[in-house]
Amino acid sequence: MSNAPIGIGLLGYGTVGSAVDRLLRARREDVTRVVGAPVAIRRALVRDASAPRAGAPAAGLLTEDFAVIRDDPGIAVVAEVMGGVEPTRTWMLELFAAGKSVVTANKQLLARHGAELFAAAEQHGVQLRFEASVCAAIPVVKVLRESMIASEVTAVLGIVNGTTNFMLTAMAQGADYATVLAEAQRLGYAEADPTEDVTGADAAAKVAILASIAFHTRVTIDDVPHEGIDTLDSVDVAFANDLGYSVKLIGQARRVPAGVVVGVAPTLVPHTHPLSAVAGSFNAVMLRGDAIREVTLVGPGAGGDETASAVIGDLMGVLGTSNSGFLRADGFFRSLPIVPPAEVESPLYLRLDVRDEPGVLAAIATILAEEAVSIDSVVQRAAEGRALLVIVTHPAPEGAARRAIARIAELAFCEGEPVVLRVLPTT
Amino acid sequence: MSNAPIGIGLLGYGTVGSAVDRLLRARREDVTRVVGAPVAIRRALVRDASAPRAGAPAAGLLTEDFAVIRDDPGIAVVAEVMGGVEPTRTWMLELFAAGKSVVTANKQLLARHGAELFAAAEQHGVQLRFEASVCAAIPVVKVLRESMIASEVTAVLGIVNGTTNFMLTAMAQGADYATVLAEAQRLGYAEADPTEDVTGADAAAKVAILASIAFHTRVTIDDVPHEGIDTLDSVDVAFANDLGYSVKLIGQARRVPAGVVVGVAPTLVPHTHPLSAVAGSFNAVMLRGDAIREVTLVGPGAGGDETASAVIGDLMGVLGTSNSGFLRADGFFRSLPIVPPAEVESPLYLRLDVRDEPGVLAAIATILAEEAVSIDSVVQRAAEGRALLVIVTHPAPEGAARRAIARIAELAFCEGEPVVLRVLPTT
Repeated sequence: MSNAPIGIGLLGYGTVGSAVDRLLRARREDVTRVVGAPVAIRRALVRDASAPRAGAPAAGLLTEDFAVIRDDPGIAVVAEVMGGVEPTRTWMLELFAAGKSVVTANKQLLARHGAELFAAAEQHGVQLRFEASVCAAIPVVKVLRESMIASEVTAVLGIVNGTTNFMLTAMAQGADYATVLAEAQRLGYAEADPTEDVTGADAAAKVAILASIAFHTRVTIDDVPHEGIDTLDSVDVAFANDLGYSVKLIGQARRVPAGVVVGVAPTLVPHTHPLSAVAGSFNAVMLRGDAIREVTLVGPGAGGDETASAVIGDLMGVLGTSNSGFLRADGFFRSLPIVPPAEVESPLYLRLDVRDEPGVLAAIATILAEEAVSIDSVVQRAAEGRALLVIVTHPAPEGAARRAIARIAELAFCEGEPVVLRVLPTT
Repeated sequence: MSNAPIGIGLLGYGTVGSAVDRLLRARREDVTRVVGAPVAIRRALVRDASAPRAGAPAAGLLTEDFAVIRDDPGIAVVAEVMGGVEPTRTWMLELFAAGKSVVTANKQLLARHGAELFAAAEQHGVQLRFEASVCAAIPVVKVLRESMIASEVTAVLGIVNGTTNFMLTAMAQGADYATVLAEAQRLGYAEADPTEDVTGADAAAKVAILASIAFHTRVTIDDVPHEGIDTLDSVDVAFANDLGYSVKLIGQARRVPAGVVVGVAPTLVPHTHPLSAVAGSFNAVMLRGDAIREVTLVGPGAGGDETASAVIGDLMGVLGTSNSGFLRADGFFRSLPIVPPAEVESPLYLRLDVRDEPGVLAAIATILAEEAVSIDSVVQRAAEGRALLVIVTHPAPEGAARRAIARIAELAFCEGEPVVLRVLPTT
């Protein structure tokens, strides 16, 4: 073992960056043994080095000049924990050109500019690792890229946003959306502006990244249709529960003969399904493949130390493989079409507000039959001359189901817009 | 990328060995891209190269001479999938001395001779990887060794034997031990001689390996007290269910101030605990630590392709890190004492067969109080002048609880031996 520490650069010294520094120092002995040499943060880029901050950076650690890190021959690898798209993207490209590998926690950057960044890393013979960009301390990226090489992965699905899972867990107890959002904000689970989380955009970025590495094809966030929980009515959470389902915000990427199916949507998950039991702010990702069958990873999907832990795992991974061709090749060598949502088959949950009169169910059932959507179960609940009618269908192409629903919505006895949610098959 | 394939040797070409060969060929493109060079099995050691076999080995692949593999400069790494302790141990040491890294699926060998083997690998500057030795395709070894470097791991616990979990799942439906064992044997989940599985010895070997890598200290199978399910009565499974628990064969390793607590035992797991829902032959391992909080991995813990998948992940890992010091150091640099079982605190489940007469509960409660074992809940079920009395205690040192139970067993109204099971705390 050499005694000169291997130098690491940090872009950013906020919650995650300072935690990377602190944990690396606290775990010095283990890190040295695993890597085979000591490792130390050499420089950290911040906007204002004189600003008060929570961490305890060593004297001389902070710099306001990106070029100091880029041009330091003593820095072998850089952790990008500053976030944002620019100047982060430009700086990352400059680091690759300078021969430095990069570890990032930046899912929005990868979900938008992954293609360009991975190609640049390969071109310069360096690595881009990104465990912390998806589900923090849950090692789903490493497991997909390194443990499952022998398996043709056919599906990745799960709960990849902790904020909304916390909210849905509370809604399952009967609270309404506005109340649980306020509670999530009070407890720090949701941001003051919760848009990214509640609209499913955050989950869509993670699905884009997971689909890309699982199927070796480029999927960007714009490819991932997403619905959030911001329009979810607690009435449907209660109905779902009576029918034997939890409502979860499910992100999924599936390999089908026609290409890749991706999406994020609030989804009815059978109570017997392992994802149904994932409660609170935890995340869970199921990986399905031929040789591995089904491996599920569950854990905290956010948090400063949890994210820093993933960043450090990646830093060690880069150092451990620094003299080989391992994980150097841009992994996206296929070009698989994204299956249009209208062609994706799924069982659906429909809730209709109808007048309680003879012939209603017959008319609805006729339209569904005409569009070849078959019914799995029906529940009706009366309410002052009207009825809430809930129908769960067998798997049907979403396009056909949407056509049927549009026709049903025009029937005279139908009030308001039908509610449509997806249902996760048991297997 | 070089075009000369990197050579791999196999010791064994049975179910797992032939699956490694088949999967590596089927996944050639992915493997080449991940490793940065093509990879191929060069030689496979078998006892009788002319025997009929299920796989389709290429001409010239099989050899009956170990030295052919050991002395082949074109073989960079060897996968040991033949099992057994000798000659496997001796051959592994010879491979290290020849400068070859080894990947193994052999938990009994590691749990008995790990200390010697890891030291020899470090001495010769090669790697010994062993993902397949614990829970097949569930990547718990890689996650512990590579993803959680930044976290002080404080506990590893879970269901690490699929045969017994399959049997316990069936017993929870009301079947008795003998019936479910016969069923497990008929379906191929249990061996004709099920001793290793049902006595907890298989789980104990896995706990020894997991404890060693989680806490960086040597734990051998002889350090792991284990009880199996072979003495479990379905009456207790039913009682546990009524009290809100599943019975699972839990293996655990916990870091405590006094050292390391390890053990395998049939354990009452609250229905609300994530491990309670793990059904059938699946395995699940929970990893707890400061930075990671709690990460759980669930999946198939056995199977030929599943084990081969883990072996291939390790082979790629060795190749990827072949020119660095990564994972070269013998990781067992601490020497932590194993806490004697009598000092380990756990809540306990006691079932007593007593005469249904006044003063019985008072006498029992008095003895428990004298040994400072406090009672959490009591359930009594009458049966023809006698009563089955079930007591769940608060956490108590096992030594004190065992003293109390021995005294209770001597009471005149107590029939037969009290049944004692551990209870897993909710967190």
